[in-house]
Amino acid sequence: MRSLRKTVLLAIVASVVLVVALLHSWPTRAYTTVDVRQRPGPIVERHLEERLPEPDQRSANIPYRLKESVAGLLARNGCVCEGESGGVNLPFAQLLFPRVSAHPLHTAFDASELEEMKRRRAKEFQGFQMRSQTPVDMLIVAEANNPLQYPTQGVEVRPLKTILIPGLALQDLPRELYTVNFTSTLGALNVAAEVEGVKVKGDGEMHMTLMSSLLPNLNRQLQFVSYTNTLFHPSTADTVQFETEGHQAMFTIKIRHRVTPKLYNTGPKGEYNISALVTIATKTFLRYDKLQDLIDSVRRYYPTVTIVIADDSENPKTVSGPYIEHYIMPFGKGWFAGRNLAVSQVTTKYLLWVDDDFIFTANTKLEKLVDVLEKTTLDLVGGAVREATGYTATYRQTISIEPGEEEEGDCLHMRRAFHHIIQGFPNCVVTDGVINFFLARTDKVQQVGFDPRLARVAHLEFFIDGLGSLHVGSCDDVIVNHATKIKLPWVSQSESDKTYAKFRYPPASSDATHTKNGLLYFKNHFQCLTHN
Amino acid sequence: MRSLRKTVLLAIVASVVLVVALLHSWPTRAYTTVDVRQRPGPIVERHLEERLPEPDQRSANIPYRLKESVAGLLARNGCVCEGESGGVNLPFAQLLFPRVSAHPLHTAFDASELEEMKRRRAKEFQGFQMRSQTPVDMLIVAEANNPLQYPTQGVEVRPLKTILIPGLALQDLPRELYTVNFTSTLGALNVAAEVEGVKVKGDGEMHMTLMSSLLPNLNRQLQFVSYTNTLFHPSTADTVQFETEGHQAMFTIKIRHRVTPKLYNTGPKGEYNISALVTIATKTFLRYDKLQDLIDSVRRYYPTVTIVIADDSENPKTVSGPYIEHYIMPFGKGWFAGRNLAVSQVTTKYLLWVDDDFIFTANTKLEKLVDVLEKTTLDLVGGAVREATGYTATYRQTISIEPGEEEEGDCLHMRRAFHHIIQGFPNCVVTDGVINFFLARTDKVQQVGFDPRLARVAHLEFFIDGLGSLHVGSCDDVIVNHATKIKLPWVSQSESDKTYAKFRYPPASSDATHTKNGLLYFKNHFQCLTHN
Repeated sequence: MRSLRKTVLLAIVASVVLVVALLHSWPTRAYTTVDVRQRPGPIVERHLEERLPEPDQRSANIPYRLKESVAGLLARNGCVCEGESGGVNLPFAQLLFPRVSAHPLHTAFDASELEEMKRRRAKEFQGFQMRSQTPVDMLIVAEANNPLQYPTQGVEVRPLKTILIPGLALQDLPRELYTVNFTSTLGALNVAAEVEGVKVKGDGEMHMTLMSSLLPNLNRQLQFVSYTNTLFHPSTADTVQFETEGHQAMFTIKIRHRVTPKLYNTGPKGEYNISALVTIATKTFLRYDKLQDLIDSVRRYYPTVTIVIADDSENPKTVSGPYIEHYIMPFGKGWFAGRNLAVSQVTTKYLLWVDDDFIFTANTKLEKLVDVLEKTTLDLVGGAVREATGYTATYRQTISIEPGEEEEGDCLHMRRAFHHIIQGFPNCVVTDGVINFFLARTDKVQQVGFDPRLARVAHLEFFIDGLGSLHVGSCDDVIVNHATKIKLPWVSQSESDKTYAKFRYPPASSDATHTKNGLLYFKNHFQCLTHN
Repeated sequence: MRSLRKTVLLAIVASVVLVVALLHSWPTRAYTTVDVRQRPGPIVERHLEERLPEPDQRSANIPYRLKESVAGLLARNGCVCEGESGGVNLPFAQLLFPRVSAHPLHTAFDASELEEMKRRRAKEFQGFQMRSQTPVDMLIVAEANNPLQYPTQGVEVRPLKTILIPGLALQDLPRELYTVNFTSTLGALNVAAEVEGVKVKGDGEMHMTLMSSLLPNLNRQLQFVSYTNTLFHPSTADTVQFETEGHQAMFTIKIRHRVTPKLYNTGPKGEYNISALVTIATKTFLRYDKLQDLIDSVRRYYPTVTIVIADDSENPKTVSGPYIEHYIMPFGKGWFAGRNLAVSQVTTKYLLWVDDDFIFTANTKLEKLVDVLEKTTLDLVGGAVREATGYTATYRQTISIEPGEEEEGDCLHMRRAFHHIIQGFPNCVVTDGVINFFLARTDKVQQVGFDPRLARVAHLEFFIDGLGSLHVGSCDDVIVNHATKIKLPWVSQSESDKTYAKFRYPPASSDATHTKNGLLYFKNHFQCLTHN
């Protein structure tokens, strides 16, 4: 008994010692800390290149003459909210010569709340600036007559990974000793191989020096310089200083993940399989008759294409059928909320936006729109909408933003225009905004989104939010019909028409930042909207 | 009568002549064409910096010794799909020493369809590459001993606008005549002022030359060089060649709109107003009892915060109450479709994701999570979920992508780990993926989106899609409870539990590209997934 107890006791002690030893020798990883707190940093001096430079001492006496045609194109210090004044005062003048009108946007707010809104907007804008600043936008000027050779663009490393820095060399005059050194801030410098005749100091740290009396050897060593990102950030850049005696250079290493593709299955090879490639998306409110007309007209030409319907009617009716997806929303949740819902459900490569009162005809050839997006780099292509009168609209708009004083906001300029005709597609142009009948890459539209804060009237806000990320086109040879809106005096409005009108053309909203102008002011930091 | 007719006739003729004259003199704008067709371009040689360089003639004889600790970190030619082999074969070994397992993803497809899927994926990937290539990623190396001074980074112009090019100068040895010239491709070069003693040729064109016998005058002229973008594209870059005799330089001018802010109203100053700042979002399916428990528990602490519920149950019940938004979807539309729907409806600055079987407790302090996002540059911060057993999980995951051969795809590596502890927030870390309980910036989550193609089991796919754009954190001191999942043998499953289980843990799907692995293979162009 006693020897058994002793053995058991020994076994227990041995196990405990073993476990303790194991835990003790467990390689404990020392975690570093990272500072991701928002802090005001040096605001990149962006207006540098937009103002005429002050002369330094040497050039102060050299005479020059301003070239107004060019100097006038440079951005002003801050935008001013003004339209076109004067002009011909004839009947139909606005039709023939559309004048530009300017709308200050702070008017969306009562005088009593404007100060508070301005303060809040400034605070949110500051946070936005801190989060979107990147060393990649900083102005760097390459010194002349620099014996250093180095990469000025295109050096990239994935977070926490290692690369060789390409293109480094020293082309110096003969010396007894050649020295170069590197300084980084978000990663460590090192060498992937050690070259004979070169002394390396600080390898594995943020400051590294290479020294040699033989220039070819130093240059061979420079081909093995590596950079390892050690401070994690999903998308940033490190600015590396590269120096030799009397000269310095600066270059950026981008630290970021590669863009992961988001590809869609397109269906079998051959002709465009519209059902596999396209989903039709729409939003409806109280107009089930018009919606059913739309569906019937679609089915005449595309019997199996999926139709996604977002519905915020008060007493929703069932809308069903093969390839129909009907989504019920809280009553009156809103126009852009419904649009955002519909596009959020699309699983095909392209989506076609239609309003619930459109009618497909033989001219509504989706294959043509698919062809444009398959063959070009465009993300979205609009078609044309024909009214009962025969008038067909493409509603092309160009959108540009003129920077304003930070406290006031920028100026938004919209014009009925387009930029270029598209080579190979003579009926199509490049522009910034189009009518509410368009085919688009699903992933791009989902990325931009329709802001659910816009409850009622809104259209171009989607294209404003898409500025810079959507490449937009418009073709006038793919046409959909618009169910008539003409209010004939002897035809009484139906009940649903009346309720529809009440919501569609509403009185002023109570939540000012959720109105079109309030949102442009607060969300997008604009002060003024001009358009013709 | 006759004279009246004559007058009328004259009037008509006069009007016609006037109109014809007007139309004739109407300034017709000559529209240029733009070529936006997809074309295969030079694929940027990205692997340049990831392979050890071949020696040229001069350095071929210089001996060197590889430094394995660094050389081993450089990316291989293509990733290999392998996990960790061997290891201790003890019970609970996987718990104590989690081994990395590797999963080839092409296995999502039948052998019969794999070839076709590979072909389609390659075609879609090619289109993606053509659309995402930009001159900004091209490797540029600055020549040594170049008398030209020029900007290597930070020059930007808004589409179709004009800027002065900063930092240009020539520091040449004395000569009789100094000449510099510029070449651009997407815009025109010009001068904003004409300096005495300098001859300008080609101003307004894509090739411009400046000549002078006086160096200070030429340098003053270089301060007035302007660039106007003429070929519209919402986001691209022009590569400008800058030359003088015997030397050249290349730099990039980014052509793009500035990022438009998307700011949110935050409610009155002072303490964090959770109802103004946060919307709770969730998806439910057949578990109305658990959903109601969730809502009741939320209301105990946050009586007025909006809760958005996406519901794809078969016979949807009414879920109502103040600040509750209930959305009905087609039956079984899916998990990520529902998540995408819910987040598409949020109008506050932040959204809190919860599963429909969570329970809020006194430890579920949303103010703490808001504080992290208000004070750092993080976009999303996860909390912790406590099971009935007391076990609390944060499910932190790091995600990295190793490039593979183009035909095969990349390798996706996920590990249970984090990168750093966050300074100022000792309970919080930076990582890449977290558990399904997190607070996030609404605009960032909407941008990334939950892919509606993922109908059933999915979680980290959201974080994979967010790689590079979401800065993710995780704090373990904000805890929500998880309604028990323990299946006690003597408690019979409810009918809804059984149906739920059938959908939640389904057999293999028929549409292979909509399964988790099929989607990773096709959509994200991966070949392999490894995890521990």
